[in-house]
Amino acid sequence: MSGVLDAFRGGEATARYADHARLARVGITTGECTSRGIDRLGASHILCEGGSMSTENRPTENVSTKNLSTQTAPARIIDGRAIADAALADLSVRTRQFRDEAGHVPCLAAVIVGADPASKAYVQMKAKRSVAVGMTSRTVELPVSTTTEELVGVLRALSADPSIDGILLQHPVPDHIDERAAFDAISADKDVDGVTSASFAAMALTGGGFESCTPSGILRLLDATGVELSGKHAVVVGRSPILGLPMGMLLLRRGATVTYCHSRTVDLAAHVASADVVIAAVGVPELIKGAWIKPGAVVIDAGYNEGNVGDVEYAAALPHAGAITPVPGGVGPMTVAVLLEQTLAAAVRAADVRACSENHDSRVEPDPAIASDRL
Amino acid sequence: MSGVLDAFRGGEATARYADHARLARVGITTGECTSRGIDRLGASHILCEGGSMSTENRPTENVSTKNLSTQTAPARIIDGRAIADAALADLSVRTRQFRDEAGHVPCLAAVIVGADPASKAYVQMKAKRSVAVGMTSRTVELPVSTTTEELVGVLRALSADPSIDGILLQHPVPDHIDERAAFDAISADKDVDGVTSASFAAMALTGGGFESCTPSGILRLLDATGVELSGKHAVVVGRSPILGLPMGMLLLRRGATVTYCHSRTVDLAAHVASADVVIAAVGVPELIKGAWIKPGAVVIDAGYNEGNVGDVEYAAALPHAGAITPVPGGVGPMTVAVLLEQTLAAAVRAADVRACSENHDSRVEPDPAIASDRL
Repeated sequence: MSGVLDAFRGGEATARYADHARLARVGITTGECTSRGIDRLGASHILCEGGSMSTENRPTENVSTKNLSTQTAPARIIDGRAIADAALADLSVRTRQFRDEAGHVPCLAAVIVGADPASKAYVQMKAKRSVAVGMTSRTVELPVSTTTEELVGVLRALSADPSIDGILLQHPVPDHIDERAAFDAISADKDVDGVTSASFAAMALTGGGFESCTPSGILRLLDATGVELSGKHAVVVGRSPILGLPMGMLLLRRGATVTYCHSRTVDLAAHVASADVVIAAVGVPELIKGAWIKPGAVVIDAGYNEGNVGDVEYAAALPHAGAITPVPGGVGPMTVAVLLEQTLAAAVRAADVRACSENHDSRVEPDPAIASDRL
Repeated sequence: MSGVLDAFRGGEATARYADHARLARVGITTGECTSRGIDRLGASHILCEGGSMSTENRPTENVSTKNLSTQTAPARIIDGRAIADAALADLSVRTRQFRDEAGHVPCLAAVIVGADPASKAYVQMKAKRSVAVGMTSRTVELPVSTTTEELVGVLRALSADPSIDGILLQHPVPDHIDERAAFDAISADKDVDGVTSASFAAMALTGGGFESCTPSGILRLLDATGVELSGKHAVVVGRSPILGLPMGMLLLRRGATVTYCHSRTVDLAAHVASADVVIAAVGVPELIKGAWIKPGAVVIDAGYNEGNVGDVEYAAALPHAGAITPVPGGVGPMTVAVLLEQTLAAAVRAADVRACSENHDSRVEPDPAIASDRL
């Protein structure tokens, strides 16, 4: 089985198993997995409707996600929805093939504490997407009165449950809960949201673990623009443990010069103005002014504030940015795609471990007849 | 015992137990723990001799380490030797009191792989200093042919040995060894050098664990200059897992805006020129040119290259810097002081755990007579 499973490992697998008809429905054509991830025209050619990019008035030219990495002219709008849809289409194919080969349906468990409507909507959306790509999902809803100890207990039980491949604890949890203790109760091999201390250290020090989903998705969006990160100056605005901090570490591992700005930063405008890549991850509506953006800079807006407003003054930034993500339809869709990709990766690893364990058992278990002879 | 041990916790303890005669010998006077940590005059007044700062031609004015945090005029030379000596004097007093109270002598185990003369000299110096403050030391010398698995085994055995309080694996190890795997074999509660993944994550995410010694020592030197780090722009040149990376995380937790520069950075000069605080931690002789330093910036040189040369062009930086560490006599001594402070902290925690365990045992262990009645 191991040889077959090799085809599914990581996010680097090509879409050679792609269902082309399905891919075409999500805006992808040609024999290889290609995508209209980025529109080469200006914002006036793109309409945002219902949270995703409309395809009206778009040119018929499609840009291969492979080719994007070598294009020289910067794209204008980074269509996160299209890039994520391409990733999900590929993931769907790989998930179904894994199910056939391994006889196991990957399962994502989502834990939510309290009844915040936005959090519940996020969890429902993630569950829906996981089912759409051929996984199962389990949602554990806990009352707002749940203690840290109770939550830790739930997360440890899910970590020990062999039917669960990935675990997501919906952020934020109520204030009385020690969120770090809860995150760290998730087994590292099921930490598909990349929130544990172990995953953070791996992102910074070695690579190879599960990555924090939003930062990891942002790297994919950056790659789609074709920007070579090595040597570029990336300014990350925000230092949260699940967004800003890991974002900077991932960019640093890719060779960028990284500046962390935050609430205590003096002259944020000057820092942003010096950036080749701006990552806004602070949750303050339009904190980053359009006029600050260096001409040609790539702007990623991970903020999502009331009224579909990001952390960047979008309209004002457009004339300056070389490429920019819209809100919504930029960072959000890619976050979910990475979450599910990592859930498949976790399932593949678990299947490998089970296979190794079975092989090992069959190899070391002596034939009963021989064993009795030796006795 | 717990109440008595409270006096020893952390590095925040005041020097109220200080041996004033001893403090005076290392350049410290007054009734409280005060230090001539920083000379207010220019470099011409300081002579480097034999790896430590000479006291010749110094003014008699001594600057309290407490008062330093509020002084407004920047100091010129950050005398790491004097600041470290003050810390070691305080540590010596606390260590001896801990020994009296807990009946245990803190022990630092140093592991060295191979016969690199510089590494051996470092380990010998650390062992000597640990004995000087009243601890014991154990040095484990392993042949250069040691495998990762063998080294991991040694480190796990030391982690499980109750007579050992702190463990140091001398960096670097031979190329064939997986240094990260070796570091992570050190139990987090004995990681007094702050090199494990768990310690790194704690430095970045929560605080409270053992800190990487050199970055932690650098923070102490920065505090001694009186610079308020919150809001300042700190440029860290270097991104190594045990120096540059944790340095940036610690500065970020203190509210600095942090930029990581490294070998891929384009226009290092411009980044350094924008810094209020420069940390040179890259190991390239005089990479940072004096002319780049912003007037008044605090410059910390963690480099130590052949010929007693740092990473900063020291003489050329002096006219620009508000404060600067010499090489040697700057960062190095403070690193050792932090290592030993953390070894005492580990011993205190271990004694607390033993005390709790004993109390717990005595509470739950039934009286034999009663126990037999129940049978």
